Amino acid sequence: MNNDLKIANSITPEPIAKIAETLGIPDDVLLPYGKNIAKVELSYLEQLEKSKQPGRLILVTAINPTPAGEGKTTVSIGLADGLARSGRKTCLALREPSLGPVFGIKGGATGGGYAQAIPMEDINLHFTGDIHAITTANNLLCAMIDNHIYHGNLLRLDIKSITFKRCMDMNDRALRNIVCGLGERTDGIPRQDGFDISAASEIMAVLCLASGLDDLRRRLDRITIGYNLDGEPVFAKDIGAGGAMAVILKEAIKPNLVQTLEHTPIFMHGGPFANIAHGCNSIIATRMANHLADYTVTEAGFGADLGAEKFLDIKCRAADLWPDAVVLVATARALKYHGGVPRESLTEENVEALAKGAANLRRHIDTLKNIYGLPVVVAVNRFLSDTDAELEEICRQAHSAGVKAVICDVWAKGGEGALELADAVVDSMLTHSSPSHPYDYAAPLMQKITDVATRIYGAERVDFSKAALRKLQMYEAQGYSNLPICIAKTQYSFSDDPKKLGAPEAFVMEVRDVTLNSGAGFIVALCGTIMRMPGLPKRPAAEAIGFDEAGEIVGLF
Amino acid sequence: MNNDLKIANSITPEPIAKIAETLGIPDDVLLPYGKNIAKVELSYLEQLEKSKQPGRLILVTAINPTPAGEGKTTVSIGLADGLARSGRKTCLALREPSLGPVFGIKGGATGGGYAQAIPMEDINLHFTGDIHAITTANNLLCAMIDNHIYHGNLLRLDIKSITFKRCMDMNDRALRNIVCGLGERTDGIPRQDGFDISAASEIMAVLCLASGLDDLRRRLDRITIGYNLDGEPVFAKDIGAGGAMAVILKEAIKPNLVQTLEHTPIFMHGGPFANIAHGCNSIIATRMANHLADYTVTEAGFGADLGAEKFLDIKCRAADLWPDAVVLVATARALKYHGGVPRESLTEENVEALAKGAANLRRHIDTLKNIYGLPVVVAVNRFLSDTDAELEEICRQAHSAGVKAVICDVWAKGGEGALELADAVVDSMLTHSSPSHPYDYAAPLMQKITDVATRIYGAERVDFSKAALRKLQMYEAQGYSNLPICIAKTQYSFSDDPKKLGAPEAFVMEVRDVTLNSGAGFIVALCGTIMRMPGLPKRPAAEAIGFDEAGEIVGLF
Repeated sequence: MNNDLKIANSITPEPIAKIAETLGIPDDVLLPYGKNIAKVELSYLEQLEKSKQPGRLILVTAINPTPAGEGKTTVSIGLADGLARSGRKTCLALREPSLGPVFGIKGGATGGGYAQAIPMEDINLHFTGDIHAITTANNLLCAMIDNHIYHGNLLRLDIKSITFKRCMDMNDRALRNIVCGLGERTDGIPRQDGFDISAASEIMAVLCLASGLDDLRRRLDRITIGYNLDGEPVFAKDIGAGGAMAVILKEAIKPNLVQTLEHTPIFMHGGPFANIAHGCNSIIATRMANHLADYTVTEAGFGADLGAEKFLDIKCRAADLWPDAVVLVATARALKYHGGVPRESLTEENVEALAKGAANLRRHIDTLKNIYGLPVVVAVNRFLSDTDAELEEICRQAHSAGVKAVICDVWAKGGEGALELADAVVDSMLTHSSPSHPYDYAAPLMQKITDVATRIYGAERVDFSKAALRKLQMYEAQGYSNLPICIAKTQYSFSDDPKKLGAPEAFVMEVRDVTLNSGAGFIVALCGTIMRMPGLPKRPAAEAIGFDEAGEIVGLF
Repeated sequence: MNNDLKIANSITPEPIAKIAETLGIPDDVLLPYGKNIAKVELSYLEQLEKSKQPGRLILVTAINPTPAGEGKTTVSIGLADGLARSGRKTCLALREPSLGPVFGIKGGATGGGYAQAIPMEDINLHFTGDIHAITTANNLLCAMIDNHIYHGNLLRLDIKSITFKRCMDMNDRALRNIVCGLGERTDGIPRQDGFDISAASEIMAVLCLASGLDDLRRRLDRITIGYNLDGEPVFAKDIGAGGAMAVILKEAIKPNLVQTLEHTPIFMHGGPFANIAHGCNSIIATRMANHLADYTVTEAGFGADLGAEKFLDIKCRAADLWPDAVVLVATARALKYHGGVPRESLTEENVEALAKGAANLRRHIDTLKNIYGLPVVVAVNRFLSDTDAELEEICRQAHSAGVKAVICDVWAKGGEGALELADAVVDSMLTHSSPSHPYDYAAPLMQKITDVATRIYGAERVDFSKAALRKLQMYEAQGYSNLPICIAKTQYSFSDDPKKLGAPEAFVMEVRDVTLNSGAGFIVALCGTIMRMPGLPKRPAAEAIGFDEAGEIVGLF
């Protein structure tokens, strides 16, 4: 079988200037990065918003992911190619990959088969450096905090209450918990600290939620870095870091343009994870795509409980966006896994287990239809081992939940494999839909967390640790009660226990801690043992990455 | 007075494709990064080396730097512009700036006044991401080392003897000494570690000394990461990181093309510091410039004792290069400082102090002429406060040391201010010069260190710590006795004591430790309290960096 990198390299990309031309982007706002990648000037978005109405927005989400892989990005790309093939002016808005998973377990994060974003190796490596800029802005703030403490600590920062951590775009468990500032007197003041992966940095969320450079600066300034000895919050602004951080991010805030293998344009920009962060590409990229194309396909991370919830409740609210339709990706293999089939038996037909596991699919459909009021189409991403009986059962399950399911075959066929899906999605769109949310933004923070857990996850109730309760009270006293919430939990289950597959009921969610992202503008609730810095597996993907004798990259797939 | 950023922004750069055209670089090997920056494909260097003879190479170095600033980069750029103005096909090869000093004390690192590299704000910020790639490759290796230990430590690494450290492109003293791997059992194995600034990473040196992608891979593989419990060296290759690191560096190894304010082409590539590393731009950039232009101006970091020595003894030997002339930059202010004038009185005329401080200049001239056998021209970089008597004294001092001195005024006049210097440098060139070094590469490591210290620094003798002696013996036993040495010491003095200005005599150098860079291919001798990770000052430059109300960057100067 062909691997993804080979397929990607078998197709000659269009020059990026030509892709830009198909969208009507003038040459003077296009900043090329090599032959096949470009950034677009922010000023162009302002022009567009004054002169053009936005097109239709399609959100691609999925059932809870499984080790089998569902191919959500592959379906997003295939769907966009399908829309484009059927004569619709289409654009994608996607997240950019983090290097951590590339060297860890995952290989690339740019779709697969004949539904890929290219140039895949550059996108999966440094791309245009956005994540490096985020890492640098984050770590400049940290260096300035420790420098402030070292040079006399005029702000009287309590070194035990500094909440803003360092970050790195790497899977490196050894950096989760460190003591820094050791050594001689001139080597700083020792304190406990740690690194998050850059995708989990508040700076990443700030960049993705900023409407422009001024808003970016305001958000950077208002990041809470910790507390002083009187227990009062201290902000990035107090450290004097906001201006330099904004300057560091001046190119990173411009959206990146690439293409699919079928030359459909993609704005790929920003990459927060959806389990530990808010999980969608930048508002700027979505808006630019939405103003340039008639149909914009965008994706939210992991399952609909995490990614779609945050897309709808955090991003859409901040950006005044609302999708016209939702595509919910499911696979026979993943539903069998949710139905209790072990990983090694997923290629064997098992309609009964699939029907049982479809409870996961039905709960996501229910949420999207009945809580958010959105039209839903189930996209069944076909794999070689799927049987007709299994595929029919998925369609039957979707129909019984009141929505249409369409089988697509985008890995093998690209956009050709998603023509029916494209039509079904367009047909599903209402003439008008208005935002509806699972919680009232004016409700107390505890209530909002409870609403998401009970209404979307199906929890019976939520238990809050004492520390979480105390901090939620403090945030409300500080005036943050109107913020949306961002739940950090496992992606594998509706619950906070990755082993509870399917559609678990009568479980209790535990919020063990909460943190304030006053720059990004949300409260993070940490449930279960979710890591903000992944580790590498025993055999990291990096071991297989290299050049072959012909100088071609191997091991990125 | 105009600041540098304002001057830089007052001149419209030529499109980078046009700059490439003046050098004859075909469009298909040019990779644009925005409108004014490009990378050039490595394959083009191979073509050039087969088809063209290299031009003349001019090394710009300086007396020992002082807090007054000597303007070595400014003179390098002005000299190149002067050569170009006088009709000579000229190119620069320079280092790219580290972000650490930009946010620390220095502001930009791209020359000044009318002798600058542009686009200065992009070059001083992320440029083309080379240093981020180096940081990432470095830290992937570290993550893989700790991951190897965590997953059973099959190589039996002695965690107390791991020599390869993490890095970050930041001035952050709090990261000099850390304990990582704290927390739960799943958070790794605790050990002492620390971060160097990326400019000091061995990966930076490897990139700068590599002749191409294959050589890069070989050098990465052979990096010593530490020792096993039997005391045997363990290499990056054993950890399986070499291939992924090479892939991470695949774009970073391509040289960057920018221009001066007068549109002279610059290859700006690689940026090791000269006090803690080998201090010159990449071999690839120098070679490419040298094959494209008739005259290539390149710069070595800090004073000639550090930068020029390493350029000549490490880089030239590795690259089979040798300069045709050396320009030694001096200023009246700096020589007065070396003569004992305090910083606050440097603008007052003091010919006597200047004559005393000129001992520093004379010792550098002596080294370059008599040890390396190179033609030397002293470039006196004029400042507003300089008096005619002072400038005459510098010229007199140079003449008495047997070389010509030329006053140049490049900050205010650009290339126009270096026309006489350009002619003098070209006139100084011999028809043929062959390499000559201060030590015999076949000599024992201790002897080579002693030769540099006594012959170039003027030390009476060298004391080695017991640890240094033991390690030097070990390196020789391991077969590294043929490596050149790279002395890490203060830039402010010929000695290892930054307070010993002028031309100190009868001092004893102390080598307190040595380290092996088996990938880069040199032995580092650490003298004095030289830091491999700088700190921020009490008022970091970052505090003043930001956007003004018109959206223009301020504070980068």
